[in-house]
Amino acid sequence: MKAVKQKHIEEIQNIVKEGRVLIDKSDRFSYSFDGSFGTFLPDAVIQTKSVEELAALVKLANREQIPVYPRGQSTSLSGGPLPVKGGLVFDLSVMNDVLEIYEEDLVAVVSPGVLTSAVHQAAEQRGLMYPPDPSSSHVSTIGGNLAENSGGPRGLKYGVTKDYVIGLEVITPEGEIIKTGGKTVKNVTGYDLTKLIVGSEGTLGIITKAILRLIPKPVASATVMAVFNSLVDAGSAISKILSAGILPSKMELMDQSSITAVENYEPLGLPTEAEAIILIELDGHPLALEDEVKKINELCHSVGAEEIRIPKNKAEEAEIWRARKLVSPAIVRIKPTKISEDATVPRSKIPQMCQRLQEIRDKYNIHLVVFGHAGDGNLHPNIICDKNDKEEMRRVEQAVAEIFTTAVELGGTLSGEHGIGLMKAPFMEMELGTAGLEMMKRIKKVWDPNNIMNPGKIFPEPGQKLELS
Amino acid sequence: MKAVKQKHIEEIQNIVKEGRVLIDKSDRFSYSFDGSFGTFLPDAVIQTKSVEELAALVKLANREQIPVYPRGQSTSLSGGPLPVKGGLVFDLSVMNDVLEIYEEDLVAVVSPGVLTSAVHQAAEQRGLMYPPDPSSSHVSTIGGNLAENSGGPRGLKYGVTKDYVIGLEVITPEGEIIKTGGKTVKNVTGYDLTKLIVGSEGTLGIITKAILRLIPKPVASATVMAVFNSLVDAGSAISKILSAGILPSKMELMDQSSITAVENYEPLGLPTEAEAIILIELDGHPLALEDEVKKINELCHSVGAEEIRIPKNKAEEAEIWRARKLVSPAIVRIKPTKISEDATVPRSKIPQMCQRLQEIRDKYNIHLVVFGHAGDGNLHPNIICDKNDKEEMRRVEQAVAEIFTTAVELGGTLSGEHGIGLMKAPFMEMELGTAGLEMMKRIKKVWDPNNIMNPGKIFPEPGQKLELS
Repeated sequence: MKAVKQKHIEEIQNIVKEGRVLIDKSDRFSYSFDGSFGTFLPDAVIQTKSVEELAALVKLANREQIPVYPRGQSTSLSGGPLPVKGGLVFDLSVMNDVLEIYEEDLVAVVSPGVLTSAVHQAAEQRGLMYPPDPSSSHVSTIGGNLAENSGGPRGLKYGVTKDYVIGLEVITPEGEIIKTGGKTVKNVTGYDLTKLIVGSEGTLGIITKAILRLIPKPVASATVMAVFNSLVDAGSAISKILSAGILPSKMELMDQSSITAVENYEPLGLPTEAEAIILIELDGHPLALEDEVKKINELCHSVGAEEIRIPKNKAEEAEIWRARKLVSPAIVRIKPTKISEDATVPRSKIPQMCQRLQEIRDKYNIHLVVFGHAGDGNLHPNIICDKNDKEEMRRVEQAVAEIFTTAVELGGTLSGEHGIGLMKAPFMEMELGTAGLEMMKRIKKVWDPNNIMNPGKIFPEPGQKLELS
Repeated sequence: MKAVKQKHIEEIQNIVKEGRVLIDKSDRFSYSFDGSFGTFLPDAVIQTKSVEELAALVKLANREQIPVYPRGQSTSLSGGPLPVKGGLVFDLSVMNDVLEIYEEDLVAVVSPGVLTSAVHQAAEQRGLMYPPDPSSSHVSTIGGNLAENSGGPRGLKYGVTKDYVIGLEVITPEGEIIKTGGKTVKNVTGYDLTKLIVGSEGTLGIITKAILRLIPKPVASATVMAVFNSLVDAGSAISKILSAGILPSKMELMDQSSITAVENYEPLGLPTEAEAIILIELDGHPLALEDEVKKINELCHSVGAEEIRIPKNKAEEAEIWRARKLVSPAIVRIKPTKISEDATVPRSKIPQMCQRLQEIRDKYNIHLVVFGHAGDGNLHPNIICDKNDKEEMRRVEQAVAEIFTTAVELGGTLSGEHGIGLMKAPFMEMELGTAGLEMMKRIKKVWDPNNIMNPGKIFPEPGQKLELS
């Protein structure tokens, strides 16, 4: 890895005609952090809408072995866009001008800087839906979602970002512009580079355009809140509902700590004495929903629900979902640092995972809050701490490592939707084994021989450990 | 590429303790063809259920540079399993002993030799569904479906095989056993090797186990047949239905040639004077279906449907779908050779594609029948001919090449669901471009440095042309 020299800056400035090159320290500082930990100053930041200019810059970077860090709005919780080796940051949030909906093809074409919520809105205006809905969708870019293969609550019924990407325009690590896939849902022409690149966290190239699959927007939706005095009963309710042939669009769990935190933050009348609540959203035909809400009511009561709340109107419904949205802002009031994990287990292991999380909380004496997408096994254990307290952070590091190990032991994965980035790289081999990790490294090496695309991510460096302090 | 020598046979026989090694010419002949063209005799055929034995054989083959051809039931229409360079065929249809359903996890674990229809049945017995349903599902193995990323009529609503594979056990081309993905729907730990290997047509490794995602089985289904005197009106009906927020599980098109062929084969009372019929299947909640059938009736009439048939009972419903199933057997009665293509276009281009197909039919004076999965743009233009008629086959070759070019010109793809295999390799670069194809080749090279896994497939050899005679 080489640093950016003055002669490079001049060459870069000659290439970038349609945009800007930021080299002031104050400008660069704004690009030194994301939603995770650590600050790393890039040597220069590029803003341009021109794919050709970006490709030319990648050719330069490849020739000179300068690191390239593509970036959207940097809401990443795993360090994906951090410029850990310096070099160039490509601010792709400026590429926000393409958002085309092809109604008859059920397809959207987007540039990477478009906000995910803008894709949602554009689709809905035509009676269509782009299902992936990471909680950050109102601030995160679709490009960031593609790089990280973002999930969200609707994963249960609709899958994740990758399931809706059918084509890409990509700048390879050697500066070639390639197209993968296309506008058809069925395409088996050669290897699936689309699904290889989506979720590769910017290590295999730069996504400059994407073709997204849309679906007809469901005609109606309905919400149910079920209150439980036992986490295990809540888990059973989830299984019962799915086994009854009902596939909700969302099934979100909040444990007692998150209920209390939200209620302290903004009183919404949540049942603070409950051990868990499940928030369920159904979508589809109104007649089907009516019947399914009735069945869910019966099923939850049959496994010991304390109470079922069915909102009477859209305002009450919105209030229930507001409770779930407030968990993150509410818990950071307890202590300043929030470590949001996304270890994911097979659905049936949710009760066991909850049990193990409580043990880890007690063992390391940490403040742990559990909520998340229970319907698809993707919990969010959040540790609330203070990053200035070194002693506490060491306990937190040990707890995080044990959460990862537990998820893998239960047949799950390190990361359901946040990505590996910087934080989870040291744990990759534990999940994948030496040979599995080796096959990934080979792809990286042969696509990016000079290791210029987002270097320092995903693949652990020798002796690399989790460090949060 | 090296041939198998006597010393290799002895070493192979020493490795294979739990299965059989077939070397008689008559045995090997049964493994020399598939559902496409050409016969190629392998040097030996291996049947074993042992993953360790298969891995040891791959190590041997890699050391000695002997080609390895994995194979299921060989229903491939693109030449996927043909042992074009001799060497070893691995008959994975014998690995049919694992078919486990994990109801609470909504997951199935299967070995590659299990028939796809057996997966369907096992899931349905538990109130679940494995959605991908290639037309060959009663005879094809799940392993073959995985290798080719099979589609089928339900692609419209439910996607393709790949969308339901969340984990694999794979023998790499160097004989290592790796695991990819797992039992969780959300998993972003490293590159998505699962979706890279599914659909790679046996060129990147041998799938020895797969974890499939299941969904709750829809409670009910309904069928509608719509009859049109114009192909364009049929296309409009499809768009109208989708824009109305209705997402059928199947939307199949049959043109006049296919209607007539079926009616001559087995009189089912089909409207032989119609230019096209659309067969629609809906699934979901019974109350929703009732309403959607009514809407489809209105929408089809509004764009000029001649007639709508709604079956009164399950027997009438079965008869409608039987008509669609009979297209393939019916058309081979016209002439002995059937070339089944699967060029796929964006949904909105279906009427244009139909128009172009009629022009190609007239230009080359061929017998062309068009049917297929119109709802997702995946048509099946079938050419009926006689492979012994050299002059006719040359016209057919030109027509096939023009079908491919047309699909790509209309923004579509060479292959929606049959795979590239041997037949479409010469057309890869036209769709992917030089740089795109190069990035695929790099993955092949670095995973399989000795090119032993299914050599001769996907990637065109210098000067390779389509040959059907």
